[in-house]
Amino acid sequence: MMNDERSEALQLFLRILRPMEVTIFPLRDFPLINPGDDLGAILIKELQKIDLIDGDIIVIAHTIVSKAENKVYNLREITPSSFAKQIGELQDKDPRKVEVVLRESREIIRMNERVLISETKHGFICANSGVDKSNTPGETVIALPDDPDLSAQRIRNRILSELGKTVAIIISDTFGRPFRVGTVNVAIGVAGINPVEDLRGRFDLFGYEMQSTIVAKADEVSTAAGLVMGQADEGTPVIIVRGVKYSHVEASVGVLNRDPDTDVFR
Amino acid sequence: MMNDERSEALQLFLRILRPMEVTIFPLRDFPLINPGDDLGAILIKELQKIDLIDGDIIVIAHTIVSKAENKVYNLREITPSSFAKQIGELQDKDPRKVEVVLRESREIIRMNERVLISETKHGFICANSGVDKSNTPGETVIALPDDPDLSAQRIRNRILSELGKTVAIIISDTFGRPFRVGTVNVAIGVAGINPVEDLRGRFDLFGYEMQSTIVAKADEVSTAAGLVMGQADEGTPVIIVRGVKYSHVEASVGVLNRDPDTDVFR
Repeated sequence: MMNDERSEALQLFLRILRPMEVTIFPLRDFPLINPGDDLGAILIKELQKIDLIDGDIIVIAHTIVSKAENKVYNLREITPSSFAKQIGELQDKDPRKVEVVLRESREIIRMNERVLISETKHGFICANSGVDKSNTPGETVIALPDDPDLSAQRIRNRILSELGKTVAIIISDTFGRPFRVGTVNVAIGVAGINPVEDLRGRFDLFGYEMQSTIVAKADEVSTAAGLVMGQADEGTPVIIVRGVKYSHVEASVGVLNRDPDTDVFR
Repeated sequence: MMNDERSEALQLFLRILRPMEVTIFPLRDFPLINPGDDLGAILIKELQKIDLIDGDIIVIAHTIVSKAENKVYNLREITPSSFAKQIGELQDKDPRKVEVVLRESREIIRMNERVLISETKHGFICANSGVDKSNTPGETVIALPDDPDLSAQRIRNRILSELGKTVAIIISDTFGRPFRVGTVNVAIGVAGINPVEDLRGRFDLFGYEMQSTIVAKADEVSTAAGLVMGQADEGTPVIIVRGVKYSHVEASVGVLNRDPDTDVFR
């Protein structure tokens, strides 16, 4: 990566030439995170290798946040309930993993012999409450952080105090979608960025006032970061997204969850 | 924009320094498209102003494709059915617009006094069959192109024959999502890019074979382009996404639509 004065001059030059350009790049060779690691300290050390600038958005795969926060379950220590055993039999899955999924959930939204879609304690609706086996060694599973906004806020504050840079932090996970095949990265925790951008009241090309457009800005950024984050053996859990215009108004990632009372898909 | 030799050298320099970087930038000052315009010719003229390179993905807002293809309905020529009138009354909407929505749909998926979610003739599930009033002058509405893959393929072929560049084309629209607030750009037509990337069979960081990850690559790219495309008065309907690794295997955008028979949200 570039980390000297020439690189800063080059960045400035490019930003003048292409003021609407967004760039997305990884923190390369990011170290493996183990349970209990001080992720903030490791992240800051890695960020010092690049030319971080005010306004950058740092998108972090939730797995490394969860690991650092010990949100890892050792399946050998899990005793499945009879309900978890029933589901495990139905879906041909480890009943101990199902037990963790149920513990992390608030409500089951849909279930059959293939999928278990639940609402997590945070209000996210996703497969298996976000509990994942992939990328975990041994008989362990990773769940979502307990309070991802707080996790993001802590990292943001630390970057501000130790590096003097004002950035936004998004913690992301890959979710499937109803009706559409395939996963995309979405935001599950934010700090320093309003997760939604409300265009209502703005005017379109022909002067019509826009009636209904709310843009899921934090999801847009997360999904864009997914292009570089990769999914398999590449190991790039931290991505910088640069050049995005966004509102710094503080709001919880929870504003991205639809009100259950008015959601036609509940 | 940069379009001389210095700019090409600079691009090359950056690509060597940051091989995993993705950049997203608009075709600036893209002309307004009117019904019947030769979009391919206009696009090629604009692309000659930038340093287009092999592998670039060009994301095009469906509105300009629809306009060029005359998929614009003049509401003065629409006679609403009694069903359209009923819905119009329920939702306090112009029954002629509802009539167009119904004509563009194959099936109503959910409906109440606020929303009409339908399956389009192409198999997409979205609000109002993708029919939109915004950004259209006068009493007209814009629908989705009849065959967006074909529209994309024609543009791609023309760029190959006239500019000698092998690119991918994605035609995009902004869709709302079940469970999550806000819209994001998704792919509704593709050429030269496999809309999905199948990671099953690859191995994760710890050597576990991945079981279920299919990435919605064309949606990832579309959503990323949405960061620059903007929604309101900015008028940047054509976005270049550069540096994304993708499969050139030809497949219809329809592979992004879940099989209705196994979709738990139908």
